[in-house]
Amino acid sequence: MKIYDWHTGPYPARVRIALAEKNLQSRVQFVSVDLWKGEHKKADFLVKNYSGTLPVLELDDGTYIAECTAITEYLDSLDGNVILTGKTSREKGIIHMMSKRAELELLDAVSVYFHHATPGLGPDVEIYQNAEWGFRQRDKALRGMHYFDSVLSNQPFVAGDTFSMADITVIGGLIFAGLVDLPVPAECEALKAWYARMQERPSVKNRITMSEQARASV
Amino acid sequence: MKIYDWHTGPYPARVRIALAEKNLQSRVQFVSVDLWKGEHKKADFLVKNYSGTLPVLELDDGTYIAECTAITEYLDSLDGNVILTGKTSREKGIIHMMSKRAELELLDAVSVYFHHATPGLGPDVEIYQNAEWGFRQRDKALRGMHYFDSVLSNQPFVAGDTFSMADITVIGGLIFAGLVDLPVPAECEALKAWYARMQERPSVKNRITMSEQARASV
Repeated sequence: MKIYDWHTGPYPARVRIALAEKNLQSRVQFVSVDLWKGEHKKADFLVKNYSGTLPVLELDDGTYIAECTAITEYLDSLDGNVILTGKTSREKGIIHMMSKRAELELLDAVSVYFHHATPGLGPDVEIYQNAEWGFRQRDKALRGMHYFDSVLSNQPFVAGDTFSMADITVIGGLIFAGLVDLPVPAECEALKAWYARMQERPSVKNRITMSEQARASV
Repeated sequence: MKIYDWHTGPYPARVRIALAEKNLQSRVQFVSVDLWKGEHKKADFLVKNYSGTLPVLELDDGTYIAECTAITEYLDSLDGNVILTGKTSREKGIIHMMSKRAELELLDAVSVYFHHATPGLGPDVEIYQNAEWGFRQRDKALRGMHYFDSVLSNQPFVAGDTFSMADITVIGGLIFAGLVDLPVPAECEALKAWYARMQERPSVKNRITMSEQARASV
């Protein structure tokens, strides 16, 4: 399998963390797509993913799978031992809900802020910006942090009692927030404590160097 | 189970179609949440779904599951016979990718157009609008129709050879596009032919009257 991604990207981080949680790093080859040069918006990449986003998984038969949730579903079920996306119907429902909510209310909101209300990836890549929309989304992301803080005041993980895809999506959101200088508000103590615990997981800690490690182990 | 929705809503349609495909209509009770009165943005509804969107599924133990993909995952796996969200890892990956792409490139884009660049649900509900962003999303949705037309020129269903959650999401997109007078361009013949075939499915045809039928069968 190949993963097209960029080592510091917040969305790529979601799949890198999932790969490590599933212990599948050594089965993938990483291909760098340079976000800062806008390589993800060029014609030869759009054939792989119409939406022009990273990461993309390429299967050995040449099939491309884009979108973090889709890639995580694929990877999590490969060995028949589902640990990230839910075993029971109830778990699946709650994990998918909380992961989607983490996109809507946090990760995607930070992304829109970055691409629309800051220089983003630079003028060659950000050919259209809507700053007013970007600032609205920044405010939404800050409210989202308070929401997830309230969730994590009552339970150890985003979707309940165990680590899941939903935690990974919130981690992606906070990675992106960190990159754009949007710190978690001081009063969000439960969210901060949870994030500190998440940093201790090897999957989270080693995500950026993962592509080098994978190369070394092939 | 209870479904909080609005009978003509495009997102509610996704779950109504999934319910009918799974033959689960008679096991749910429908509760109307009046979109035109903004009931989905009021405090007592936000407790059920922080994001303030329809539909929401309430389980018999009081758990709320929001987000169409999450609800569909729940419903599809209830009887152990998955027919909408993929049996193999490859099917899961492709269906989730295409469904998410149908949200990003079509359904959500039409929704943003409606809420931001038209009167939407009226001035009492649409308290913030960004018309420029709305029109950008309308153009994105029209490009999305051409993309799905190209997909359906090569295969009978959105995610390949069988009907799936991804078809339902595109159907939701075209339902919404119809409501806001954004017709499928004439040259998108494969998309139009597929949509005509979809209208013949009882799950799609009877979606609006489903809540009355469910009441009659309880």
